Amino acid sequence: MTELLSSIIEMIKPVDREAMAEARLRQDMLTKPQGSLGRLEELSIQLAGIQGKPIPQIRHKAVITMAGDHGVVAEGVGNWPQEVTAQMVYNFLSGGAGINVIARQAGARVIVVDMGVATELKTSPQLVSRKVALGTRNMVLGPAMTKRQAVTAIEAGIEVVMAEVAKGLDIVGTGDMGIGNTTASSAICAVMTGKPVAEVTGRGTGITDEQLIHKIEIIDRVLAVNQPDPNQPLDVLAKVGGFEIGGLVGVMLAAAAHRIPVVIDGFISGAAALIATALSPRLRDFLIAAHVSAEAGHRLLLKHLGIKPLLDLGMRLGEGTGAALGIFLSETAARVLAEMSTFADAGVSERNELGN
Amino acid sequence: MTELLSSIIEMIKPVDREAMAEARLRQDMLTKPQGSLGRLEELSIQLAGIQGKPIPQIRHKAVITMAGDHGVVAEGVGNWPQEVTAQMVYNFLSGGAGINVIARQAGARVIVVDMGVATELKTSPQLVSRKVALGTRNMVLGPAMTKRQAVTAIEAGIEVVMAEVAKGLDIVGTGDMGIGNTTASSAICAVMTGKPVAEVTGRGTGITDEQLIHKIEIIDRVLAVNQPDPNQPLDVLAKVGGFEIGGLVGVMLAAAAHRIPVVIDGFISGAAALIATALSPRLRDFLIAAHVSAEAGHRLLLKHLGIKPLLDLGMRLGEGTGAALGIFLSETAARVLAEMSTFADAGVSERNELGN
Repeated sequence: MTELLSSIIEMIKPVDREAMAEARLRQDMLTKPQGSLGRLEELSIQLAGIQGKPIPQIRHKAVITMAGDHGVVAEGVGNWPQEVTAQMVYNFLSGGAGINVIARQAGARVIVVDMGVATELKTSPQLVSRKVALGTRNMVLGPAMTKRQAVTAIEAGIEVVMAEVAKGLDIVGTGDMGIGNTTASSAICAVMTGKPVAEVTGRGTGITDEQLIHKIEIIDRVLAVNQPDPNQPLDVLAKVGGFEIGGLVGVMLAAAAHRIPVVIDGFISGAAALIATALSPRLRDFLIAAHVSAEAGHRLLLKHLGIKPLLDLGMRLGEGTGAALGIFLSETAARVLAEMSTFADAGVSERNELGN
Repeated sequence: MTELLSSIIEMIKPVDREAMAEARLRQDMLTKPQGSLGRLEELSIQLAGIQGKPIPQIRHKAVITMAGDHGVVAEGVGNWPQEVTAQMVYNFLSGGAGINVIARQAGARVIVVDMGVATELKTSPQLVSRKVALGTRNMVLGPAMTKRQAVTAIEAGIEVVMAEVAKGLDIVGTGDMGIGNTTASSAICAVMTGKPVAEVTGRGTGITDEQLIHKIEIIDRVLAVNQPDPNQPLDVLAKVGGFEIGGLVGVMLAAAAHRIPVVIDGFISGAAALIATALSPRLRDFLIAAHVSAEAGHRLLLKHLGIKPLLDLGMRLGEGTGAALGIFLSETAARVLAEMSTFADAGVSERNELGN
């Protein structure tokens, strides 16, 4: 492990229990029956613990969408040609993708990062280029990347967050783009949760029953060839991961190190979270699961992480689209805590324990 | 039935299937796997059908929060003193309640309507006064209101919407405030769904097991005394309803008559929807269920209406807080359909049916 990576992991402190207790007290003084805003109340208390402020604030919002290609697509695990990864990066840059629209609606900026798209992309002032390589290798034949590349990818994610922190960042969402990356994510998920591949492998962007059986066979072969060790998360990332997944691991660690809440998106972000929480178990308390996606295995993955998703809208697009909705709910939760009147302020009578 | 009410019901036309088909076609051309935005896609198509536009637009947003008191509180069905209804109205007017915060976050204006608070309220330019009476009568002793008052309440709701339409209204959320109104709503729900009172009665703002048994007994007595006829929705509203519930019935009918989507909030709005859809079955397609609340019976109520809620966040505050979140999601859905690039526009390759 390099100095940057180990120092970032060391920076991650436990959430602030005192701020959480104060936030909880304040929630109970607000003009509503206690607990009546449900998950929004819990969320505001979590945000207080993460930011270390009794009244957390969410103003500067960003979704970091990382793109990378996967050599395993040579095995025919999906339906979309590899060039779509690059095409979608251009779509992100021109503002026409799902994440652009939903992030605009949530008031979050989108940071597009090339972590390892298989073609050389045209430079653009809006594109952050942190390309580790022109796509991973086909992991059926051996490790997807070297251990050094895995660390480079994580460090890139750390540095992207540090640059955003400098501009102002109160919450960050994670997003991904990469044809073939549900295959890598299922492989990671199988290794880290110990579940059979068939239980954590889904239809990605939409494959048939027959294709699903093939995808499961490929992942089983990937695991047999590489023998990733669940006790060595960097080993897992290198052998069966992806560059954008490694980048997201870095994003999560660096955000937590800076006490910034991380709203994780769907299955690919979840796979990154499995690696990242293995590197730093404290990270878990900094994660907010935006939604449970329609991808098989995501529910199980979140259960393994021990995080309850906020939304269940049948989404499975990735890009950070779910995360952007989670950012909106987080900001809502923080504003409720900050802006609602207390019973005393508003002159509202409190609940009468004797009945009315 | 009066002329205003029957003409509004007559104005409600079926949703526009052609606009829905066009919206669906466009969804499938957008740069994402088909169906990958799940409920947001369905929602955009529903909005197209309601507004009668292939690309629906949500700009002017409002939550109408209606307040009323309930004579049945004399039976000790809850824990909060009746004066809280009036106090919360003042809290709405000063912007410190949950609905104010969440509506601000969703960019929706809040219209506060006094439908029948038990005290004379101070006038305010922001308060719409449509007081039918100083609270309903205790429905354990006979009908909560006269049939004429029930119609007056509905008409007030219609007129409130018509005034908002004049200012610009693309979507409306429903909200309620009224100490005791879960009791009325459970009574309505039991009558309209035919379910036993115990199945549709919950803890409202938070009562004990013993209090819950008492609440169920009271509602059973209310139904025995009044014998509301489920085939006569106005009869049900008059006998076991509330003024704010009647107002919300009018809001729903008038919005649908003007092809404006209605985002219904929790259990009380749901009770109003049971009455309103009985008056106009076509209304159902204009309703969007923001969330399933923590109040027992709400899930069953929505199932009876045949509407799938968007959110499940354990909320049970009312006021329109859930509806405001539903408005945000609706606007998001509409913007996705309007603003995302198509495959052709963005130069993104489409799915390859032969695998990649």
